[in-house]
Order: sequence, then structure tokens, then C-alpha cells
Amino acid sequence: MKRNFFSWSTLVAVALFTTHVNMNADATKSAEDLVKKAKEAGLVAIPDDTQAVEKLVDNPKNPINKAKLDLGLKLYFEPRLSKSALISCNTCHNLATGGVDGVSAAIGHKWTANPHHLNSPTVYNAVFAKRQFWDGRAPDLEAQAQGPLQAAPEMAISKEMAVKRIASMPEYVEMFKAAFGDEKITFKRIADAIGAFERTLVTPAPLDKFLQGDEKALTSAQKEGLKVFIDKGCASCHNGIALGGSMQKFPAVKPYKYADIGDFKGDKEGRVKVPTLRNILETAPYYHNGAVWDIKEAVKIMGETQLGVELTKDEISSIVTFFTALKGRKPVVVYPVLPASTAKTPKPDAN
Amino acid sequence: MKRNFFSWSTLVAVALFTTHVNMNADATKSAEDLVKKAKEAGLVAIPDDTQAVEKLVDNPKNPINKAKLDLGLKLYFEPRLSKSALISCNTCHNLATGGVDGVSAAIGHKWTANPHHLNSPTVYNAVFAKRQFWDGRAPDLEAQAQGPLQAAPEMAISKEMAVKRIASMPEYVEMFKAAFGDEKITFKRIADAIGAFERTLVTPAPLDKFLQGDEKALTSAQKEGLKVFIDKGCASCHNGIALGGSMQKFPAVKPYKYADIGDFKGDKEGRVKVPTLRNILETAPYYHNGAVWDIKEAVKIMGETQLGVELTKDEISSIVTFFTALKGRKPVVVYPVLPASTAKTPKPDAN
Repeated sequence: MKRNFFSWSTLVAVALFTTHVNMNADATKSAEDLVKKAKEAGLVAIPDDTQAVEKLVDNPKNPINKAKLDLGLKLYFEPRLSKSALISCNTCHNLATGGVDGVSAAIGHKWTANPHHLNSPTVYNAVFAKRQFWDGRAPDLEAQAQGPLQAAPEMAISKEMAVKRIASMPEYVEMFKAAFGDEKITFKRIADAIGAFERTLVTPAPLDKFLQGDEKALTSAQKEGLKVFIDKGCASCHNGIALGGSMQKFPAVKPYKYADIGDFKGDKEGRVKVPTLRNILETAPYYHNGAVWDIKEAVKIMGETQLGVELTKDEISSIVTFFTALKGRKPVVVYPVLPASTAKTPKPDAN
Repeated sequence: MKRNFFSWSTLVAVALFTTHVNMNADATKSAEDLVKKAKEAGLVAIPDDTQAVEKLVDNPKNPINKAKLDLGLKLYFEPRLSKSALISCNTCHNLATGGVDGVSAAIGHKWTANPHHLNSPTVYNAVFAKRQFWDGRAPDLEAQAQGPLQAAPEMAISKEMAVKRIASMPEYVEMFKAAFGDEKITFKRIADAIGAFERTLVTPAPLDKFLQGDEKALTSAQKEGLKVFIDKGCASCHNGIALGGSMQKFPAVKPYKYADIGDFKGDKEGRVKVPTLRNILETAPYYHNGAVWDIKEAVKIMGETQLGVELTKDEISSIVTFFTALKGRKPVVVYPVLPASTAKTPKPDAN
């Protein structure tokens, strides 16, 4: 009965095993191809090691140090940096809710909606954008931070008042000294500390692991979605580490159906900052005017206005499945205890 | 020369040593007396060990468990529990700023100030108050939490909408199941989870160590302040663990000079909840109507309206120095990442 040692079942098992190995080899090959394709399309991973990330996000004009990050964290959550003492950076760029406020148009001082009906972009991964604000008017986060602090419908504080408030608290004076080398408190330094903190708000996601070679980091459906995303041309604007962040003509091909909500038309050349797609499923509503709540509708409109294609329902679903691979791990933030106001601290003004 | 062994200098040294020992003994005796005096005046320490605190703050009708605290933390910071999706419990009871908003009258939905010009009391150590709200109408934190959620000038959400919003997010459904044993989400359970979390917001301070027998926990000036505080009668209302928290006639002896700010007159018997003095130097402005920014003025007025005494400047300073011994260690709170809204989540409504 020795001949039966190689039984049919064994042969079948060997065949199955070989197929399995081949399938694995195929899968690996296909994953490698997809990574190559994604990289060629301009997708870039957030580096795996912390030091590389720190180097990447640092601003030579505002170098990060531990003391500056401690200070920046406090100032990010500091409501006394608004005229009313009720609104902080975190009010509209809430780290608990995807780095946004989740409303169509930002609402600030005296419950005023953004006069252009502009939606608050997420602060997470904003460091990877080439420009800041929807019209790209600020070159970096430090410059951006100066805007909402002063804007009348946002935090509505004057430079002088911001400095007076912060400088009235000895604990802050010490912190500025530690962060900047001397205890001079200026409006620019306030924004610089906030900007430094914001630079650390980076959220590595399954896509990063995949781009770094871990083929199992994405499910088959996510991989399929990534393929569709690239094949349809989405990555022509949504690329780089942010999968977004550059200035692009909008709308490019066909009119935007909600263009009449608010009066924002982009920069002088009609260009609008491309939103990051990282954590996109947490940052509804979408578009500069927050007109679209449904991510599927948002993708459909993008196909029409930017690519001139009518995406099928399956393609849209597949792209949205890919977005689940962009949900990132949020940095752990210990909610700060802020210095107590002193007799010298200028009082809140709700008007 | 053996006689010189006991030299004058040795004798002086011995004398000085004896005096030192006596002084230490005196100091210890006097500290023990002060602790006794403080305890007799009704001051009570927050227990030293965590288990004792947990037992003390627990509510048999809403027992604390880890899952409920995790949920309560998220709900405490959850802006979607307000109609606008912009205001959370933490907006007015900000854990970063002494558990308060630091404005005279709370400002909520549509930038509406509290119609009675009521000031937001601190959430820290609120668990130790006998009643909740300035008029004491709620028996506990769970009952209190239901109020601001629904109040039109605060979070302005209906019970139904609060439940709909939370129940629309599967992650919350799971958390309710873990916290309450089944996944039923009710308005009461939302408030109960928030209340449970608030029960843990306890801030042990130098006074507690002193009452537990560490005579060095307070400086001489703080001890002197404590003596004045007791001798003048402050502890007749500001007692218990909270150094406050009971309902007392206000004003008791003389009229309150800022009584015309707002229309609040206390409960039916003209009684007002005594604010806790813990962290009092972080919770300006003072009084139910937030009319007083200067703690020294607040103490002076208290002497007049409640005790019928004209406190001297030195006495007031001394009492305020004692208050520095009430600055407590805040619990470490990791800022939560909240569940993402879904297609089923009712939209924010800023109107």
C-alpha cells in the first residue's frame, strides 16, 4: 500500500498549498504593484519613526522644543485668547471631533457665522498643507494662527489685548521664557507657540503602513478603493502626505452645484486649497462652504467638477472604503490646566 | 583644663538646642491645636487614599464603574449634546480654568447670557455640595446635568434630540452597553454618565494634608489665615469637605451691594447655595451673579452681609492667604477622541 502514500488527498493538498503560495505570491506582487502605483501617483507616507516626523514637521523659523509645545498646547485651549474669553482655537478646530467643529460655517464671537460661509478645516495634519486658509493666503500654521485670533467673527481679540491677557499671568511669563529664551511676550510668539503645537497634530493611518510595505495594513476592499482613487485621477490633486494641501482651480470643469452658498471664490486665480483626505470621514460637512454632509455626494461632485467624470455608485463606494484607511491615530493630548487669571488680567468682553 | 570641657559655648549651644526643641514642640502643639480647632469648626479633609475617595463620591443610585467614567468623560466634552453642536458641559465648566468659564454670567446657545445673570459654579468638588444649582433645586450631580443640557440659554437640546444624536453613533451604543449593562440610551443615562464622571473631579489640597496631621503642609501665614477664617466665623457656612455646599440665607445681615445685577433671590426661603472655597482663587468672578472680581472685596462683602463684621485689611489678606492652601491638584484628564457622526446623526442647529 506504499503507493497510496501519495494519495489523491495529499496531491490535492499539495496542489492547494501550491495555489495558496502562488496566491500569496500574487497578492504580494499585486500589493507591491499597488504601492508603486500609489507612490507614482504622488501619495506619500507619514514616516514611521518619531524623529523623522519631528524633523519633517519642524519649521526652521520657529523651531520646536518641549517648552514651546507645552506652551502651545495651553494656548491652543486658552479661551482668554478670545475677546469674550469663551472661544479657543479648539472651539472650531476641536481635537475631540476630527480637528473640526462639524458645522457648515464656523461660528465665533457673538455667535457670528463666517461671513463667507466658510467651513473650518481640520487642524490634524494641516502641517502637511503647502498653504493655509481656503484661499491659501497664509504660508504656514504660525501665520494662520494669527488670523482667527483677530477676526471679528471668530475670536475677535486685538494683538494688544491678547498680549495683555497672557502677560498678566506669571506662569505664562515663565513658559515664554522657557520656550523662546526670554520672557518677551508678543502676539507673534503666541501664534508661533500655537503653530508649533499644531505641527505635532499628525495622525498615522493604515495607508502609511501600507505605503511602507505592510501589505496587510489595508483590506482588499481598501486596496481596491485605492486603485479606483488613483485610476480615476483623484490623486492628481489629493496627493503628498496630506492627500491634499495644494492650491487648485475649483471648480475646474463643471460648475459647483452649491456655489451660491456663501461668496467665496478662491484666490485671485480662482484656486481653492485642496482639503486633506486624512480622517475625512470624521470631518463632515465638506467643501469650503460646508454644503455637503454626505461623503458619497462629496466624491460624486468632485468627479464632476474637477475630473469631468460621472463616477458610478460602485466607484464612489469603493473610494469611500479607501477613505477608511485614512483614519489616523490621534496624538494623546492631556487636557491642560491653565494659569489662573490675576488682578491684572483684562476682563472678558462678550460684546 | 578639664573644667573647661563644659565651656560657655557648649552651654549656649545646649540652651539653644533646648529652645529649638521647645519651639518645635510648641509649633507641633500649636499645629495640633489648629487642626483640632479646624475640625471642631467643621472642616473635613478629602481622604488620602483613592479607595476612600471613590467610596465617598459614589452614588448608590448611579454606581461608578470604569466604563461609565470613560463614557462620562466623552459626554462631558461632547458638543453634539447641544443643539448647535458647539457647546459642551466643559464650555461653561471648563476643566482647564478652575472648572468655570471665568465670565460673570454664563453665555450659551446663540450667545445668550443667563437670564438671571447667574455665574457658572465650578464642577471641581461639586460632588461634595449638599445640593446643586444656586437655588439648590437639584439633589445631585446627575439631576443637575439634565438642566443645562435642556436650558434654552445654555445647551438648548431636547431630551429626544440628545438621545437621537448619541444613539446615532455605534461607538456610543457600545459604551452605554458597557456602562449600564444594556445598550439602551436614555436622557437620564446620558446625565448619569456625566454625573458619574463629575464625581471624580476632586482636587486634594495642602489643607487636606494639614488636617490629616502634616503640620508642614501649610505655611505659617496660611495657618494664621486659617485661624482668622475660623475665628471670624467664615467656617459657620464654609465647612465640610467642600468648605461650602449647603443652603444658607443670603444676604443674612446686611444687604448685598450688587443685588440689582440680575434678579436671582435664592430659593423660596431666600437661601443660596454656599460656593465651595476649594480652588477659589481660580474661579473669579464671585457671587451667584458674578459681580465681584476681586477676592478681597468678595471676602469683605461676606463679612458684612453674612457675619455683620467689618473685617480689617489684614484679616482679609490673611483669609485670602489661607485660600492659597485650597488650591488643589486637578485630576489628569486625557482629552477624548469622540465617535464620528454618522449619516443618521441629526445635524447641528445654530438657531
